[in-house]
Amino acid sequence: MLVGKIIGSVVATRKNEKLVGSKFMIVETLDAMGEVKRLVAVDNVGAGIGEMVLVATGSAARIGCDQERAPIDAAIVGIIDSGTGLPELDA
Amino acid sequence: MLVGKIIGSVVATRKNEKLVGSKFMIVETLDAMGEVKRLVAVDNVGAGIGEMVLVATGSAARIGCDQERAPIDAAIVGIIDSGTGLPELDA
Amino acid sequence: MLVGKIIGSVVATRKNEKLVGSKFMIVETLDAMGEVKRLVAVDNVGAGIGEMVLVATGSAARIGCDQERAPIDAAIVGIIDSGTGLPELDA
Amino acid sequence: MLVGKIIGSVVATRKNEKLVGSKFMIVETLDAMGEVKRLVAVDNVGAGIGEMVLVATGSAARIGCDQERAPIDAAIVGIIDSGTGLPELDA
Amino acid sequence: MLVGKIIGSVVATRKNEKLVGSKFMIVETLDAMGEVKRLVAVDNVGAGIGEMVLVATGSAARIGCDQERAPIDAAIVGIIDSGTGLPELDA
Repeated sequence: MLVGKIIGSVVATRKNEKLVGSKFMIVETLDAMGEVKRLVAVDNVGAGIGEMVLVATGSAARIGCDQERAPIDAAIVGIIDSGTGLPELDA
Repeated sequence: MLVGKIIGSVVATRKNEKLVGSKFMIVETLDAMGEVKRLVAVDNVGAGIGEMVLVATGSAARIGCDQERAPIDAAIVGIIDSGTGLPELDA
Repeated sequence: MLVGKIIGSVVATRKNEKLVGSKFMIVETLDAMGEVKRLVAVDNVGAGIGEMVLVATGSAARIGCDQERAPIDAAIVGIIDSGTGLPELDA
Repeated sequence: MLVGKIIGSVVATRKNEKLVGSKFMIVETLDAMGEVKRLVAVDNVGAGIGEMVLVATGSAARIGCDQERAPIDAAIVGIIDSGTGLPELDA
Repeated sequence: MLVGKIIGSVVATRKNEKLVGSKFMIVETLDAMGEVKRLVAVDNVGAGIGEMVLVATGSAARIGCDQERAPIDAAIVGIIDSGTGLPELDA
């Protein structure tokens, strides 16, 4: 999984019907995760802007969040309280 | 999921039979998504050239778009109206 | 999916038995697809050296080409006739 | 699979319920694995900080660790004793 | 699939029980495959150090090698005899 910070969200009125009700958050991954990038992840835990979160990608996002048949390839599955091994968390 | 802009399309007369009827769009991902790249995504929402879209990749593209047995690894699953956290949308 | 050109092929006499009969083509992805790279894709449409093709990767390659239980992670699923949004096709 | 060293861990009180009881380790991949990066992998073998481990990613992490329906995309599946072909292990 | 050379192997006494009996080879991918990197692939064809091999990644490695429930995300599925389109093979 990746660790990143929620920095925004997107709205799509016209979308695949299985995505109705999903919140699309923009997560920016931490430096240490390799190339810094932003991705769209569906919120599964009630996370908000500015929070540091755990993101699961691939089939884990659909199946692990009980949306097995939705076109979701990334989901926010945890809100990080603390940690070691990542400079942004040590601070 | 990724956010990108539809900038073209490709035509393939000779193709896997499960792809018959699919529209293959060229999507260029936004700068913030990491390395800018273009990929071919099957349209699932009636999107057109110039639109900013949400793209699901991997098994989510097949399963989430009810084309479970087609050789599809990327699909356009939403048309983006607005958003924050991505410079191209803030503008 | 990716767009690339078939530039070669490889032969492997000793291989997983489910690969017997498969043609392993070397596809070089186009510049616009991000980092240019070559990959091995199993031919599913009768494509030949020099052709511009559509490549599906991941589980889509196995399942979409009715080789669900074969160790295949990339397949050529279309031969591209024309297109826009990719410099090599516009030319 | 990837080889890396466990250099930390993260705590997430609020998380997907299927992740309750999982230990989230920060693994830094070795130089030879390509771009060095840190990722979050769920511990499946009782590994600890400082150990060199084998990490499985993608659906293999869920299915291979009998957590088929959890949002897990990376798991520590072995503790490396020795090896060749990786400078950090030859040393 | 990727083409690479087997340059080593790793030993992990403590591991997920479904990995017992697997041989973990270190494969270095060829230059042409993009960023050169080493990965751990389970041997499925009796390959040895120094051989040029075909590697399947993702779910294809598990399912294609009849180890559907093992935490394996890369497998050596062929030994390459000859080929074109890859400088290391042309030589």
